[in-house]
Amino acid sequence: MTPVTPATPGPATLDAADPLAAYRDRFVGAESPLVYFDGNSLGRPLRVTGPRLARFVDQEWGGRLIRGWDEDWLALPERVGDDLGRVCLGAAPGQTVVGDSTTVLLYKLVRAAVALRPGRTEIVLDRDNFPTDRYVAQGVAAECGLTLRWIETDPAGGVEADQLAEVVGERTALVLLSHVAYRSAWLADAPRLTRIAHDAGALVLWDLCHSAGVVPVELDAWDVDLAVGCSYKYLNAGPGAPAWAYVARRLLEDTERPFVQPVQGWIGAADSFAMGPDYRPAPGIRRVLSGTPPVLGMLPLRDMLEVLAEAGIEAVRAKSVALTSYAAELGEELLGDLGVRLASPREVERRGGHVTLDHPQMREVTARLWQRDVLPDFREPHGLRLGLSPLSTSFAEVASGIEAVRHELVDLRR
Amino acid sequence: MTPVTPATPGPATLDAADPLAAYRDRFVGAESPLVYFDGNSLGRPLRVTGPRLARFVDQEWGGRLIRGWDEDWLALPERVGDDLGRVCLGAAPGQTVVGDSTTVLLYKLVRAAVALRPGRTEIVLDRDNFPTDRYVAQGVAAECGLTLRWIETDPAGGVEADQLAEVVGERTALVLLSHVAYRSAWLADAPRLTRIAHDAGALVLWDLCHSAGVVPVELDAWDVDLAVGCSYKYLNAGPGAPAWAYVARRLLEDTERPFVQPVQGWIGAADSFAMGPDYRPAPGIRRVLSGTPPVLGMLPLRDMLEVLAEAGIEAVRAKSVALTSYAAELGEELLGDLGVRLASPREVERRGGHVTLDHPQMREVTARLWQRDVLPDFREPHGLRLGLSPLSTSFAEVASGIEAVRHELVDLRR
Repeated sequence: MTPVTPATPGPATLDAADPLAAYRDRFVGAESPLVYFDGNSLGRPLRVTGPRLARFVDQEWGGRLIRGWDEDWLALPERVGDDLGRVCLGAAPGQTVVGDSTTVLLYKLVRAAVALRPGRTEIVLDRDNFPTDRYVAQGVAAECGLTLRWIETDPAGGVEADQLAEVVGERTALVLLSHVAYRSAWLADAPRLTRIAHDAGALVLWDLCHSAGVVPVELDAWDVDLAVGCSYKYLNAGPGAPAWAYVARRLLEDTERPFVQPVQGWIGAADSFAMGPDYRPAPGIRRVLSGTPPVLGMLPLRDMLEVLAEAGIEAVRAKSVALTSYAAELGEELLGDLGVRLASPREVERRGGHVTLDHPQMREVTARLWQRDVLPDFREPHGLRLGLSPLSTSFAEVASGIEAVRHELVDLRR
Repeated sequence: MTPVTPATPGPATLDAADPLAAYRDRFVGAESPLVYFDGNSLGRPLRVTGPRLARFVDQEWGGRLIRGWDEDWLALPERVGDDLGRVCLGAAPGQTVVGDSTTVLLYKLVRAAVALRPGRTEIVLDRDNFPTDRYVAQGVAAECGLTLRWIETDPAGGVEADQLAEVVGERTALVLLSHVAYRSAWLADAPRLTRIAHDAGALVLWDLCHSAGVVPVELDAWDVDLAVGCSYKYLNAGPGAPAWAYVARRLLEDTERPFVQPVQGWIGAADSFAMGPDYRPAPGIRRVLSGTPPVLGMLPLRDMLEVLAEAGIEAVRAKSVALTSYAAELGEELLGDLGVRLASPREVERRGGHVTLDHPQMREVTARLWQRDVLPDFREPHGLRLGLSPLSTSFAEVASGIEAVRHELVDLRR
């Protein structure tokens, strides 16, 4: 079978014209022929991260020892949070904090939100939300006597404004949604959906795991109440790196309805080292914290935020759009005749940083691709998910990966 | 003022006779003249840890990328937990898991315990328990409508058997105690106190933050229900490294009263990657987990467990007893005439891995010592806490530190 010649510009042309192309060399493995389509699941490490961690261990942890806490580390959750807010989230300082896992932060914020809307009995979320979001909501609903109100979404799409408007109302305490759907890459209209939730008197919590570091977010301008996200996808902070949470300043400063989360620990207390008899929450965003901050885990995130600040999140988004558009077009051109269908939004305004291609044999294709060092993700029911990390993915990598998909699909037909 | 000549054997003699003396060289900073008395707060890094982390970033994270999850990382919380159980805790496999902070794990286990004792309305704990333990208990009590029943402890001691027997009863759902008191170093009689709690039908949760890695623990033999601990003290896993939890197998296997914790996340679910509609807890200890495991943070712990396994926890305890006895005796000999009093148990069977010396001026003394690279901790109201990490602390270091205390106290008198 002769390879199909694509009509879209060649990858070499696209890479040559890419203003961010040089960033690829800052990542470990840039020189390898491996095709990495899982930057949306685990971003590659920066080359500086390993040596910096080793230096941290020897000089900071080993050299400053316990003094490091006062000198630097205790402030890291808020300092790195502020950096993240500035570089990626459109969040003014004092509203973002790093620590815990996404799941634990979701739990804290969902509980806090429910407590801020006493008498309201429903949490609204969508059936295709990421499992941990759904599981947390199920758990909180069970323990707090709430009902979950599900939005049924199109698997190739996501939550639309009219769908949300139909279900929110005076019973809604919280709307819990993902900004970018983890399967389809549907990019929700966050400002509009936030307004709809607010019009019903509900709070809104955005899961930004698949947005942070790739899709520009304007939490303050959009009037968002709460957000969480991980740091190991497009923020390249490493496997299981700490997550982060955003709480709008107006909620933190509301003295009539104080913002409280249920996991009361010493690091979220007003004066951690007074070790007083009773828990009093720290002023500001710090009260979201509970235990000792995970210092080592925050360092790679700090490295990546430096690079993102340098590149600029708008430029990163432009490259992301170019990469996903290229993958979608090439996917349809090279794979359409084999029955592959685009399972992500065609419209770039509605698409996040990955592209999903559907075919009944994608499970087998994924297994075969992994054998030849082409690493996409498989997502039920039959999606091949191409996560394209803008600063570390080249157009040549996309082209080579999609040709490999074609090769395997053709081979499976024999 | 002439220095007082101590009656106890000289530090050089003690170091020469110490079978574990050579381990000190495995730690960063062993060559430095700095005196480190805070190994019970933040243990020194092993020399292997920095290079191993850098190698992990480049080869594992950077080289295996997303494949690392299936190949190794997803199993780490249980694998490192089992190692910890074997080396330090007297816990058979399948009962210990690493993840989250101590505070978050305390929250999960306290909530789980309360749910296992419906109708019981009290949590018993002591007034001098570590702040985060008290704060978590306060939070859970408030949200679940329980009462806290406080044991009033002697600040230089800890919870005694008759004190516990007096307060536990048919209303007690949970007894929450620290094995080693963070101020006095009082080492509780855990097997006896556990029996007393059980005789009243209550569950018991031991906080082992100040025990793990220094005091041998026999969780299975003592019939303990639940335990948590951090890994950044005597387990040398670095600032804010992940904590761990133990749940006795009989609780995990009880199908009539299933063990459930409130933070329901995808990694604690029965089949994380099926991403099914409803949360079903994983079988076994894994259900204690919630979010993505903090891989980077677990690696230094694994390094230290190798070293502890090699040295043997009983040998570590023997050195710890020798170090604390030496510090207590030298402290009284050199500082007694200056008004310093031992604020830790004299009896070694009742003493953990640190020694606290009281004097009204210890706050100023601590500040001055830090200026001269002698690093103890200060604990309210006037305790100088000497944390003696057995594998990285020499007798010479203890002697030099206590002489520095004398020097500063004498100087403050002038």
